[in-house]
Amino acid sequence: MTLQIGFLLFPQVQPLDLCGPYDVLASMPDTTVRLVWKTREPLMSATGMLLTPDTVFDDCPPLDVLCVPGGSGVGALMEDDATLAFVQRQAQNARYVSSVCTGSLVLGAAGLLHGRRATTHWVFHGLLEPFGAIAVKERVVRDGNLITGGGITAGIDFALTLAAELIGDEAAQALQLELEYAPAPPFDAGSPQSAPPAVVERVREMNATALAQRTRIVERVTQRR
Amino acid sequence: MTLQIGFLLFPQVQPLDLCGPYDVLASMPDTTVRLVWKTREPLMSATGMLLTPDTVFDDCPPLDVLCVPGGSGVGALMEDDATLAFVQRQAQNARYVSSVCTGSLVLGAAGLLHGRRATTHWVFHGLLEPFGAIAVKERVVRDGNLITGGGITAGIDFALTLAAELIGDEAAQALQLELEYAPAPPFDAGSPQSAPPAVVERVREMNATALAQRTRIVERVTQRR
Repeated sequence: MTLQIGFLLFPQVQPLDLCGPYDVLASMPDTTVRLVWKTREPLMSATGMLLTPDTVFDDCPPLDVLCVPGGSGVGALMEDDATLAFVQRQAQNARYVSSVCTGSLVLGAAGLLHGRRATTHWVFHGLLEPFGAIAVKERVVRDGNLITGGGITAGIDFALTLAAELIGDEAAQALQLELEYAPAPPFDAGSPQSAPPAVVERVREMNATALAQRTRIVERVTQRR
Repeated sequence: MTLQIGFLLFPQVQPLDLCGPYDVLASMPDTTVRLVWKTREPLMSATGMLLTPDTVFDDCPPLDVLCVPGGSGVGALMEDDATLAFVQRQAQNARYVSSVCTGSLVLGAAGLLHGRRATTHWVFHGLLEPFGAIAVKERVVRDGNLITGGGITAGIDFALTLAAELIGDEAAQALQLELEYAPAPPFDAGSPQSAPPAVVERVREMNATALAQRTRIVERVTQRR
């Protein structure tokens, strides 16, 4: 049986949230990976690259793995009924429900994080609790069939973790070696714990408007329940 | 002055070779990032995702940074006159000529590696010397204005290294923190030195046909000179 994996695609998705786990999971044997959205028109991503859905909500078969990437477009998704209905419907029978970065806020808006351990991009971590989640500051967080990754590049670590469950450790290690994933960042600035305070402050400022907007959206979404 | 960065796009490009450095570099201030190919039609990538060029060779302005990603389509590129002419023309005046993964083989075919230190995906490392390159087994290799990255995920480290040169260490660290790039792979299998021997053998076998094909292409290309 072919494994069906679906990534939600949407306007202003972050390309690397998607492409990291996509290239890991699409390299597994007997696997179909879909990019699912309302239409098949090319969509503008958060950094300017056009990305094209290949499956629409109504044509999407039941997914073994549902993954919601993040990006500046997640605010709109949290209040989009068609998207939330698709996510809820697929989540009912999926073997794994997952997210990268701020994609977990969409899972939260769909009511899928209540009482469950989850993570998101570090800047937006405070938005998990209003959804009833147990917010965890780890790079990849597992709670039953829910797997959430931290910010952007955490999607690669998430996908290798998931691949190991799906196809075994040795096959997942082969994927890692094929991707030559022996990371060597030129700086130790990838988390707010390790980055210089001035850098942390700078990134908080870069995201201040987005955080304020999403905080208001989370308030609206959680009050409506 | 807006910095002009161009990634070569082509059929069977590896999405993550592209998206890693794209998301890093497109997040720099005053930067235009282009995906350049012969036409603007969507192209099928190596793992199935459609990617869409936004600039054609003849309309591409002089690039400050030229970057050639890798993927299973590089074999055809090494013998494609229009591509090699574009790469050679842009390389003449670019501040940086760069590649990720097997993209360096295209630089080699364009005659840009002669006498210069360079790297590529570990499986294909032996194909650098026929181009006159000084093959170096490091993740990111710098030789003057030539910067080459190793396999697939090395593109993220390459791009942060380049960003630090272009916009300074602190701004590059902010990009790293925004990407939450504090990698934590679930296995230590990302290089042939660290992976279990059975995994190394498995990935060599996965790539045996591609290696044989590209070896023949490199022989043809280098004999023609």
